[in-house]
Amino acid sequence: MFPNKKVQTLTGKRVQVEMKGDKHMLEGKLESADDNLNLHLVETFEIIDGVKSRSLGSVVLRGNNIILLCPVGE
Amino acid sequence: MFPNKKVQTLTGKRVQVEMKGDKHMLEGKLESADDNLNLHLVETFEIIDGVKSRSLGSVVLRGNNIILLCPVGE
Amino acid sequence: MFPNKKVQTLTGKRVQVEMKGDKHMLEGKLESADDNLNLHLVETFEIIDGVKSRSLGSVVLRGNNIILLCPVGE
Amino acid sequence: MFPNKKVQTLTGKRVQVEMKGDKHMLEGKLESADDNLNLHLVETFEIIDGVKSRSLGSVVLRGNNIILLCPVGE
Amino acid sequence: MFPNKKVQTLTGKRVQVEMKGDKHMLEGKLESADDNLNLHLVETFEIIDGVKSRSLGSVVLRGNNIILLCPVGE
Amino acid sequence: MFPNKKVQTLTGKRVQVEMKGDKHMLEGKLESADDNLNLHLVETFEIIDGVKSRSLGSVVLRGNNIILLCPVGE
Repeated sequence: MFPNKKVQTLTGKRVQVEMKGDKHMLEGKLESADDNLNLHLVETFEIIDGVKSRSLGSVVLRGNNIILLCPVGE
Repeated sequence: MFPNKKVQTLTGKRVQVEMKGDKHMLEGKLESADDNLNLHLVETFEIIDGVKSRSLGSVVLRGNNIILLCPVGE
Repeated sequence: MFPNKKVQTLTGKRVQVEMKGDKHMLEGKLESADDNLNLHLVETFEIIDGVKSRSLGSVVLRGNNIILLCPVGE
Repeated sequence: MFPNKKVQTLTGKRVQVEMKGDKHMLEGKLESADDNLNLHLVETFEIIDGVKSRSLGSVVLRGNNIILLCPVGE
Repeated sequence: MFPNKKVQTLTGKRVQVEMKGDKHMLEGKLESADDNLNLHLVETFEIIDGVKSRSLGSVVLRGNNIILLCPVGE
Repeated sequence: MFPNKKVQTLTGKRVQVEMKGDKHMLEGKLESADDNLNLHLVETFEIIDGVKSRSLGSVVLRGNNIILLCPVGE
């Protein structure tokens, strides 16, 4: 299964995503993902030093700025 | 609904956008968005430390340099 | 009107462009723009701390390295 | 053989991947790779100063943020 | 004329190119350019503080990492 | 000849490649290159301060993260 399809199987589950830039880590429930790895997360939190901090709610992430994505607790 | 379509449903509403580079946060009314997440915002402000600062008016943002987009007060 | 079309309506007008990298701000007259937001500017100046500095003349900017574009005095 | 096909021949083998951003090095077993070099790794570890550190398990990496990929022990 | 066509009219002429990364400035004779702004330069020099330094000879530059391109002495 | 074709003529020859990120310079024998400038190098070394250091063997480089490529001793 190609990597983008693997991501789409995680729809409805919680994922952690490391973004470019400030390289902050986000955690949220994956609402949808397209083939470019653009993501729509809900119930999203910033993770700082491994701890949930600022709540962001509903966010859209641009796929090309995603470094790494992994399911939570898999 | 795919992430880029989710963004297009926000047309006419206020959104916050975190950009690459200086990673400044912008807030504006979403005038239009295409499938690459290129955005046209109007009544745009820079947000520094959570406070509206410099007014930028009408701006176009290149989609690939968007880290994160979220609706204001959703 | 999609964001890239919005940019094309600015042809012949002066625009400010914030670029990635050193994140310098440029100001010039928009000679042409394509759908990738590649830009050809003429009579271009670097803007440092809000002041016109080094004159660059005719320059081509690669769209993917544009953070933000806005018309001057709109 | 084109570079992306070379990568696909490594499926099932352990690879090291240097990512953009914090430029951390990861090592994992290559589960799948597509033509954009998006990767799905399993049994993944972060490599710090040449030593396996934090275990990341199953991760998806966005191809455009990969600097360099090499097979382990080839 | 679109920006990438403008660049192609500079074939055979000397151009200055500002690259991402270390943001070094290069100057060389434009041998060829494609629509992605990938460039082949010959007789290329690094420009440091406005002065020609290290000679690089024949180089290929990846278009997406070009910040800005301008003709020399236009 | 377009820049990507120029690169393909270097197959079998040694090339130096400057990458984004840590901007390390690599030198290796070009095994293959595609139109996106993805490269497969063999007998690859990291170049630090102009000196061959760490041996990397067989590596794949993602084209979009290449700043500059030049043949060795041309």
